[in-house]
Amino acid sequence: MSHTVLEKHRATLECALHAIATRGYWSAYNEMPSPRAYGETAPEDGKLAFEAHLGREFALGQPGQTGWQGGEESPYGIAIGTTYPVCDSEALIAAGEKAMSGWQAAGADGRTGICLEILDRLNRQSFEIAHAVMMTTGQGWMMAFQAGAPHAQDRGLEAVAYAWREQKFVPAEATWEKPQGKNPPLALKKHFEIVGRGVGVVVGCGTFPTWNTYPGLFAALATGNAVIVKPHANAILPAAITVRTIRAVLAENGMSPDLVSLAVADHATTQRLVTHPAVKSVDFTGGNVFGRWLLDHCRQAQVYAELAGVNNIVIDSTDAYQRMLGNLAFTLALYSGQMCTTSQAILVPAAGIDTDDGHKSYDEVCADLARAVTGFLAKPEVAHAVLGAIQSAATLKRIDEAASGKHGAVILAPTKLDNPDFPNAEVRTPVLLACDAGDEVAYMEERFGPIAFIVKVADTAAAIALSGRIVATHGALTAGVYSTSAEVIDAMTAATWRSRVALSINLTGGVFVNQSAAYSDYHGTGGNPAANAAYADSAFVANRFRVVQRRYHV
Amino acid sequence: MSHTVLEKHRATLECALHAIATRGYWSAYNEMPSPRAYGETAPEDGKLAFEAHLGREFALGQPGQTGWQGGEESPYGIAIGTTYPVCDSEALIAAGEKAMSGWQAAGADGRTGICLEILDRLNRQSFEIAHAVMMTTGQGWMMAFQAGAPHAQDRGLEAVAYAWREQKFVPAEATWEKPQGKNPPLALKKHFEIVGRGVGVVVGCGTFPTWNTYPGLFAALATGNAVIVKPHANAILPAAITVRTIRAVLAENGMSPDLVSLAVADHATTQRLVTHPAVKSVDFTGGNVFGRWLLDHCRQAQVYAELAGVNNIVIDSTDAYQRMLGNLAFTLALYSGQMCTTSQAILVPAAGIDTDDGHKSYDEVCADLARAVTGFLAKPEVAHAVLGAIQSAATLKRIDEAASGKHGAVILAPTKLDNPDFPNAEVRTPVLLACDAGDEVAYMEERFGPIAFIVKVADTAAAIALSGRIVATHGALTAGVYSTSAEVIDAMTAATWRSRVALSINLTGGVFVNQSAAYSDYHGTGGNPAANAAYADSAFVANRFRVVQRRYHV
Repeated sequence: MSHTVLEKHRATLECALHAIATRGYWSAYNEMPSPRAYGETAPEDGKLAFEAHLGREFALGQPGQTGWQGGEESPYGIAIGTTYPVCDSEALIAAGEKAMSGWQAAGADGRTGICLEILDRLNRQSFEIAHAVMMTTGQGWMMAFQAGAPHAQDRGLEAVAYAWREQKFVPAEATWEKPQGKNPPLALKKHFEIVGRGVGVVVGCGTFPTWNTYPGLFAALATGNAVIVKPHANAILPAAITVRTIRAVLAENGMSPDLVSLAVADHATTQRLVTHPAVKSVDFTGGNVFGRWLLDHCRQAQVYAELAGVNNIVIDSTDAYQRMLGNLAFTLALYSGQMCTTSQAILVPAAGIDTDDGHKSYDEVCADLARAVTGFLAKPEVAHAVLGAIQSAATLKRIDEAASGKHGAVILAPTKLDNPDFPNAEVRTPVLLACDAGDEVAYMEERFGPIAFIVKVADTAAAIALSGRIVATHGALTAGVYSTSAEVIDAMTAATWRSRVALSINLTGGVFVNQSAAYSDYHGTGGNPAANAAYADSAFVANRFRVVQRRYHV
Repeated sequence: MSHTVLEKHRATLECALHAIATRGYWSAYNEMPSPRAYGETAPEDGKLAFEAHLGREFALGQPGQTGWQGGEESPYGIAIGTTYPVCDSEALIAAGEKAMSGWQAAGADGRTGICLEILDRLNRQSFEIAHAVMMTTGQGWMMAFQAGAPHAQDRGLEAVAYAWREQKFVPAEATWEKPQGKNPPLALKKHFEIVGRGVGVVVGCGTFPTWNTYPGLFAALATGNAVIVKPHANAILPAAITVRTIRAVLAENGMSPDLVSLAVADHATTQRLVTHPAVKSVDFTGGNVFGRWLLDHCRQAQVYAELAGVNNIVIDSTDAYQRMLGNLAFTLALYSGQMCTTSQAILVPAAGIDTDDGHKSYDEVCADLARAVTGFLAKPEVAHAVLGAIQSAATLKRIDEAASGKHGAVILAPTKLDNPDFPNAEVRTPVLLACDAGDEVAYMEERFGPIAFIVKVADTAAAIALSGRIVATHGALTAGVYSTSAEVIDAMTAATWRSRVALSINLTGGVFVNQSAAYSDYHGTGGNPAANAAYADSAFVANRFRVVQRRYHV
């Protein structure tokens, strides 16, 4: 049966393998939330499916259930009121471990086929998941659909493809014949079994509950492990829908659904869960405090962690000043800067920059960028679509703090917008601050949300050096440079090799530094403090399984 | 130039890639210490080259040298008296880091070519290295030659092949074109640079100073890292010869020789070295105390550790009793049991076993195995060739302790043999002890050396369960089973999947449970406490480099 499932999705797998090998553009899942792509009734069906979850118990049929728990608060101010099963961690772990033997027996082909079927089924639920992502995270609709559904599915498929490739390198068996001169050869038959390491726990974040969860989830699952998904307390629904679908597809294919479960757990329970001896991998996206705790305490597991960082951009010069400003304005505004890839520190030489629009002083760059942000968000419908809502009270507090001038001179003050569709939504426009390179305490720590610094640096060389130091010491998922000088670009490139951060050069069109495309862009390098792993590469999957061999004379 | 070097060795690389993909028998380096394979004068030249090191300073031209240090004591009792450069760790690290940019620029092809050239040059030094291994470790000549030279080189080449394969998956560049309906596509050019993680430190062991060092050394080197080799204090010479050759080949190929250096360091200096922020990987083979310390303290690095274990064999039944005994006797005697793969606990049902020679009681199995060992070692020339000498005073002490009956009834007492060629050599025959399964304190901890337990277990099912528990809790690199029952073999196979240990089934011929062949046998699974990594697999190389991308509009 498993084999049949793989054959059904063989073309998708082949395309994904080609994509990760060539890293050109490809996507398995349509990113347009259109009836043409998803079916005439899909938008309405998805909305109804989402609404059907509100105020209800979300049953999963998991073992060890002890109660129900909800409590998600929508940044858009709607009432969610869904409750989810609370299950005993030991029961989830035991059931997951028990389910692993059937999953192991399915082999790489069987597991891959079922993972592809799961992704296909999740894709059909894209509208339902998009609404769940939007309402729990505060993302705008288009981002919620794209990042929450097809792009997340692409990142999941990417992990499955890497996992498949690595597993397929291991032959099922071999005949080993060592010549012995004139005597008969020594001959052994050998078998090689791919065995998952144990239970994987995937700890989700509050802003991208599917996009940041699917890579670890599918990497661990495809390589033979049970997976427990521990969602952020405020973004459970997208994970719950995902887990329910996975469990259904597993059962349909003769596997125990308990291979994958949802853990709605408080902090202490989560800490016990991730340090359980049976847990062999932990995927985490979130803040440094819990991230460092995981790295320090989960010694029994491999921890794949995406933590905080200080993304930055060096501006040396440009031949497209207005388009540069427009590109930056979009980056700073998108989802109110609540992306792990949003730039926080923009490094500008004190003497200003040369542009196609003449020389611009540091102060002019500040003022022009502020104006670009304001202009971009002038139309309310654009503003709401792009900004979404502020996901957490902590981010609202950081915005207020920034607006107070505590961290630097306020170039652009945040404004509170009213969203006519969601009167209770918390909407803020970005804050821009100016500071000197010496004010490291201000800008050299992640201030998650729509808060950016335009940092005055002695000159371009100092900016490049500062960028490298920021990345090496505080981490970053993205870096950017604007320059018309090949020497400057080369110097910045070399700096990013040393600090190990992805670089976007002179982005002035429809691609933004905070965007990362599956199969093509590595999300994180795994080589600086912002993340110890990348989506996705061989290292992201290769250590999630082990090979157990046996051999005998023939 | 790098490209030329790769072309020179292209056929070797292709064969190695084929071998790791198919895991059949293959070797790049002749394992016979014969003039026909290595040249008429090779044996004598190698011996003279080795002797020329004795009592001399072993110059390496490394930065930061502060003095000379020696102190190796040969288990064969010869005077070594070689002294090695002691260098400031900071100087070695700084020089290694500096050398990495040229190594990065060489690319995977350049690095692979130079690594293959290094291995070829080391192969030509096989006799010299074999003498150095023999005299520092106490291995017999044949093992010292094979494991110390060609087999170690094969393990190094294996790591290079894995590293090359993983690196080649990363395209140097890509054009990313995303369709935009009727508008022109979004188009980006992307470049992907493979960047080593930093300085790798390889901490060698006293028994296999090349075989257990080359995998980590070449894995780290081939993936773009600087490497500092920190040999065991009593087995420096094989590492020093290796490092000198590497430095020479690097320099010949336009690379800084300081990319690879030798660190002769005391314990405190080693601790500072491996926890240095610039050190990003540590490969270690050795005991649990320092191994655990490394795992606990080297938080800045990926640690690949091979630690202690309790290798075990379940005997249920056999249709080749004498050959089974002969096979086991060889395993227990080879290099006086000083292999990390030597069996320590032989689990035998209390009711005895069925054999082609009739039913054998537990006591008969004990007596027959003792007789087999004694018989195998009856001829002194065989005994010395197989046993070698005892590597350390600690092992001598453990043998005495075992012989005292402290850990169990002595079935076979060790004897001290006189080696006519080396009057001061410490040679001991194996100790066999009998104990009950309940005497866990006796057998369930590694007692490194020629000390084995025949453990009386309730029945075969209990033996399989005990084997699984030993591996899961104390680790093992090898497990074995003897049985004529397919059900028993299946049950043992399933147990090894759960405990994640390699299984040898019914070995009665010329292959032994403690032997592990490059390209075909995974050495360790990386899935039990005896080792968190295997020689070699994708996981052994994939996380030693990172990919740093850059992208721009086209």
